[in-house]
Amino acid sequence: MIILLKDKVNEKQVKNLTNWLEGIGFDLHISKGQNQTIIGLIGDTSRVDMDLISSLDIVESVKRIQEPFKSANRKFHEEDSVVDCGGVKIGGGHFQIIAGPCSVETREQIIAVAQSVKASGAGMLRGGAFKPRTSPYAFQGLHEKGLELLSEAKRATGLPIVTEIMEAAHLPLFEDVDVIQVGARNMQNFELLKELGQTRKTILLKRGLANTLEELLMSAEYIMAGGNENVILCERGIRTFETYTRNTLDLSAVPVLRRLTHLPVVVDPSHGTGHAYLVPSMAMAATVAGADGLIIEVHNDPPHALCDGKQSLTPEQFDDLARRIMAVKEYAVR
Amino acid sequence: MIILLKDKVNEKQVKNLTNWLEGIGFDLHISKGQNQTIIGLIGDTSRVDMDLISSLDIVESVKRIQEPFKSANRKFHEEDSVVDCGGVKIGGGHFQIIAGPCSVETREQIIAVAQSVKASGAGMLRGGAFKPRTSPYAFQGLHEKGLELLSEAKRATGLPIVTEIMEAAHLPLFEDVDVIQVGARNMQNFELLKELGQTRKTILLKRGLANTLEELLMSAEYIMAGGNENVILCERGIRTFETYTRNTLDLSAVPVLRRLTHLPVVVDPSHGTGHAYLVPSMAMAATVAGADGLIIEVHNDPPHALCDGKQSLTPEQFDDLARRIMAVKEYAVR
Amino acid sequence: MIILLKDKVNEKQVKNLTNWLEGIGFDLHISKGQNQTIIGLIGDTSRVDMDLISSLDIVESVKRIQEPFKSANRKFHEEDSVVDCGGVKIGGGHFQIIAGPCSVETREQIIAVAQSVKASGAGMLRGGAFKPRTSPYAFQGLHEKGLELLSEAKRATGLPIVTEIMEAAHLPLFEDVDVIQVGARNMQNFELLKELGQTRKTILLKRGLANTLEELLMSAEYIMAGGNENVILCERGIRTFETYTRNTLDLSAVPVLRRLTHLPVVVDPSHGTGHAYLVPSMAMAATVAGADGLIIEVHNDPPHALCDGKQSLTPEQFDDLARRIMAVKEYAVR
Amino acid sequence: MIILLKDKVNEKQVKNLTNWLEGIGFDLHISKGQNQTIIGLIGDTSRVDMDLISSLDIVESVKRIQEPFKSANRKFHEEDSVVDCGGVKIGGGHFQIIAGPCSVETREQIIAVAQSVKASGAGMLRGGAFKPRTSPYAFQGLHEKGLELLSEAKRATGLPIVTEIMEAAHLPLFEDVDVIQVGARNMQNFELLKELGQTRKTILLKRGLANTLEELLMSAEYIMAGGNENVILCERGIRTFETYTRNTLDLSAVPVLRRLTHLPVVVDPSHGTGHAYLVPSMAMAATVAGADGLIIEVHNDPPHALCDGKQSLTPEQFDDLARRIMAVKEYAVR
Repeated sequence: MIILLKDKVNEKQVKNLTNWLEGIGFDLHISKGQNQTIIGLIGDTSRVDMDLISSLDIVESVKRIQEPFKSANRKFHEEDSVVDCGGVKIGGGHFQIIAGPCSVETREQIIAVAQSVKASGAGMLRGGAFKPRTSPYAFQGLHEKGLELLSEAKRATGLPIVTEIMEAAHLPLFEDVDVIQVGARNMQNFELLKELGQTRKTILLKRGLANTLEELLMSAEYIMAGGNENVILCERGIRTFETYTRNTLDLSAVPVLRRLTHLPVVVDPSHGTGHAYLVPSMAMAATVAGADGLIIEVHNDPPHALCDGKQSLTPEQFDDLARRIMAVKEYAVR
Repeated sequence: MIILLKDKVNEKQVKNLTNWLEGIGFDLHISKGQNQTIIGLIGDTSRVDMDLISSLDIVESVKRIQEPFKSANRKFHEEDSVVDCGGVKIGGGHFQIIAGPCSVETREQIIAVAQSVKASGAGMLRGGAFKPRTSPYAFQGLHEKGLELLSEAKRATGLPIVTEIMEAAHLPLFEDVDVIQVGARNMQNFELLKELGQTRKTILLKRGLANTLEELLMSAEYIMAGGNENVILCERGIRTFETYTRNTLDLSAVPVLRRLTHLPVVVDPSHGTGHAYLVPSMAMAATVAGADGLIIEVHNDPPHALCDGKQSLTPEQFDDLARRIMAVKEYAVR
Repeated sequence: MIILLKDKVNEKQVKNLTNWLEGIGFDLHISKGQNQTIIGLIGDTSRVDMDLISSLDIVESVKRIQEPFKSANRKFHEEDSVVDCGGVKIGGGHFQIIAGPCSVETREQIIAVAQSVKASGAGMLRGGAFKPRTSPYAFQGLHEKGLELLSEAKRATGLPIVTEIMEAAHLPLFEDVDVIQVGARNMQNFELLKELGQTRKTILLKRGLANTLEELLMSAEYIMAGGNENVILCERGIRTFETYTRNTLDLSAVPVLRRLTHLPVVVDPSHGTGHAYLVPSMAMAATVAGADGLIIEVHNDPPHALCDGKQSLTPEQFDDLARRIMAVKEYAVR
Repeated sequence: MIILLKDKVNEKQVKNLTNWLEGIGFDLHISKGQNQTIIGLIGDTSRVDMDLISSLDIVESVKRIQEPFKSANRKFHEEDSVVDCGGVKIGGGHFQIIAGPCSVETREQIIAVAQSVKASGAGMLRGGAFKPRTSPYAFQGLHEKGLELLSEAKRATGLPIVTEIMEAAHLPLFEDVDVIQVGARNMQNFELLKELGQTRKTILLKRGLANTLEELLMSAEYIMAGGNENVILCERGIRTFETYTRNTLDLSAVPVLRRLTHLPVVVDPSHGTGHAYLVPSMAMAATVAGADGLIIEVHNDPPHALCDGKQSLTPEQFDDLARRIMAVKEYAVR
């Protein structure tokens, strides 16, 4: 960490600061220019409160050299992490497609979709039981009943199940869940992250709509700091000014995260774009960009037999796409 | 709500849709153009799942006419709401300054700040006991102890207290808290909002970093749908590409929200800008723009006697500012 | 176009509006609901000033059904356009890699890079002679001299040349240039676009940093409205809050644009990410996402023999990448 | 400027770099830590190409200490600049309201508006003759005729005139114009800025939709580097995800710019919000935030007698607002 002091700070203030920094265990490297004093901190600065230092009134600015995340950092863990998801592996060359409906609706629906996506090559089943909805008047999911139906679909097909949690108090209901998803809106629900850090469940952590990749890694760090290293990161689009797509899928997140962290990275082209017609191209693109997996919405029972979901593929579309993904996988940039 | 159908849909599909819409209680107004069919829905559409309809494959797009929020909507509640905060009123012409430190640190600190801001004219005391921090390694607040110290400061000064909650499970600790703050990162923590809707506590709901004003109002709606109408909205800056300021304070939110809702609107220029030197101008600007109040960080005990906080005012700076705010208040655009 | 009127407008105002609309040649379709009147416009609305109508005080909002661009619209030109670039074709199945240095520096440099990228499979040579730089103190390019060197490289290799124009007054200098690039900062320099519309040169139009895809198409429309249909669109990243990458490359622009327009779409992963290490994965991703081409920075003469450019590939890296792009091309989603 | 080198760079590479930096005239201050070498550059770094240095492959990152703008920098020019606008002064305590219609339409319109805004206290008249429009099919202004009408209005009222230029080639037409506006879309049209730097006209430079404040100052620097120091900066809203307002008016730009530069800063609440009902509150807020002036759309001739413009005030609304602005001005934070 480099601390740049303001012009014309007095000796006594500098001394106070350096004494305090040495007191908390840092070696210092001080450069005095004509106008400017620079202090270099040597030691593990990931545990330093950068905000506190930059708030000191003799400090012009603070610049980290070392990333502020440690457990998730590839520098301290060069090999790709391979994460277990109910017997299925992801990361380190293990590529997985997670597929299923946005919400669990009925037994027939979830079992039919599970069988269909399994036949097409999906390695895990997704389905929402607790649904975060912008409006309190919108359908909020089947809750416990939805989790039970997911378990049935798992027993019927052998596919591990992935589903979203919205509150730590619901954790006891998630015992049979193989991968617990933390949604974009809860990426910085730190109390939830801490509780998940106390479990040994695999966590799929989605990037928040307005969160940087560094913040995503810091949220992973919350889980890992509790001792739970089973974390999968997910890029699912960020919020920008563009309105043709629901979100702007940031595919460069894949190679950036692969450089910064050893954790597996998956991409959600369904939420990332909001339109079924964009899913195949973005799923293919994510695959060659080096993602460790994909999470794709598939629905076999268009609501009221009237329609297809706006961002869901039909089982036929998914089958075609899965085949193409498998074919292109070998060209992935790693 | 206006539903625009795609070109070349067949009669049977249209019939299916209109039957279903009538079945759930809407009167329809159908216009058939040469290529385009438009369906107008008459009735209370705030409870319609717009996503579901727009996902139908015969639908080109859906446009709301009525806003999707109801309890918070000024159309159905023309008068400004006046919200009680432990005996102090806000809204409907009652203007309040909420002041205090970012975090509660010690008994001496919080009582000294409370006495000082009260003397300067603040109507409420703020102070963080549970702190959402990007890094798991940063100071997370004094928790229960912090809440106790806030209560002491309240007894010592008579100022109602405002402090942030991070998890519904902590609610029993907040009994003596007058205004419970929901932070920007939890604005769409819907489980927390629902639980707060079951209380009759006053809630200060901060806008999320990447949330639209409509989403802010929908989150207020979550609380109000539970029966708790004591909601105060807070603009605290949104995330943009600009890096000179920590966030971009969106002051036009004040007049926009005043038009859309009857709920009081306060502005947080401290988090909204991230720099103490920007707080006075933005606090003054928010006041004349018509805000019902301000929430300002004030700190009397610069960490380790070394510095002032980056975005906190000293008690002297706050005293000067409070005086100027009171003077300019009468010019506010309402 | 659908015009939604405000509640409680009077008959006379409505009559004024409908008379005016009919006067300028539209058939109208008027639906009167209990509270709300909706006017549908039938006819070619791409030439209507939507801002003017939405500014009328009896109008609540205006919604286009038809896109506001016409010449660029795939609805009126179903086949992919194939654009000629000095004898090389792009679009409609013709895929091209455009490669070369950010700036033309010396004769040796540009000829060496041209020969090298040609050998690796590039179909066109890029190189900047007029450089838009944020700072007036930064290197601004070799200007006329740079254009002459590009011509020499073209004669030496046969590769068509692509270079940026910054002002219409420079057009006479661009006679030997095969593809004239309009940079992101000039995407809405409408005077320049109009002048380029008067030529029959092929134009590579880059998306602005904060411009929507619709605005990109409207800028293409400026060129095409002048009679010049030789337009190539280029996605090169948009500005967001993320700072790990220089811009956020919006790859979903590729399938969105392919649906909206018949014009060829290329992707610039070099400017889109700002880091050489991200170029291969994003170039591969753009290819399978269905782009008609790529524009990639390649530099053989790292400045002062000290370094590689931050976002430029070496000729060796480019050679490897070009090979992989050719291999993956057949999997592109079209 | 601080240059942070990568871990494990070799001696020879470092030597090459330091020799080159010394060769171009810098004193260096080199700190070698255990893993990390830091080079401090002493001297005028505003003329250094930061991109070039950060592209060197031994460089981890580069951090400016000194701002990259010099002529506009308050550090080298402590006093506020007072800029002349055809006899009217702005800056350094001189506050001006610039008012008038979006476009010049007719002689009657522009003269009537000019007389009216003058009576209400406006110090300058604005009106567009060359209009940048997203669509080539929208009204583009009256061009030369519009400039002539502005001149007539100036003769009739004595108000200096402010109008937008879109291309350097039009400069001869702007001889009678007192303040030449560079619109948001042309903020980085560097060729235009350079030409304006060759004149001694006063330039009103608007911030681009996606441009940082530093970029705005660098564009001012382009004009000033040519010798023209008559520059006024204008905040007019940036592009964000929020859609209730046309843009997000960034009022903290006012105190930030006042700290960074000595140039006058004005605010455009009409374009900054896009809605007439938001103009009064944002105009008042900008005034107390310390702006040197405002630019406000006023229209006396609603199109076709049907309506008011969406973001224009009527003369009566402007008269009321101007009175309130004058009253609140003394409370401005400076």
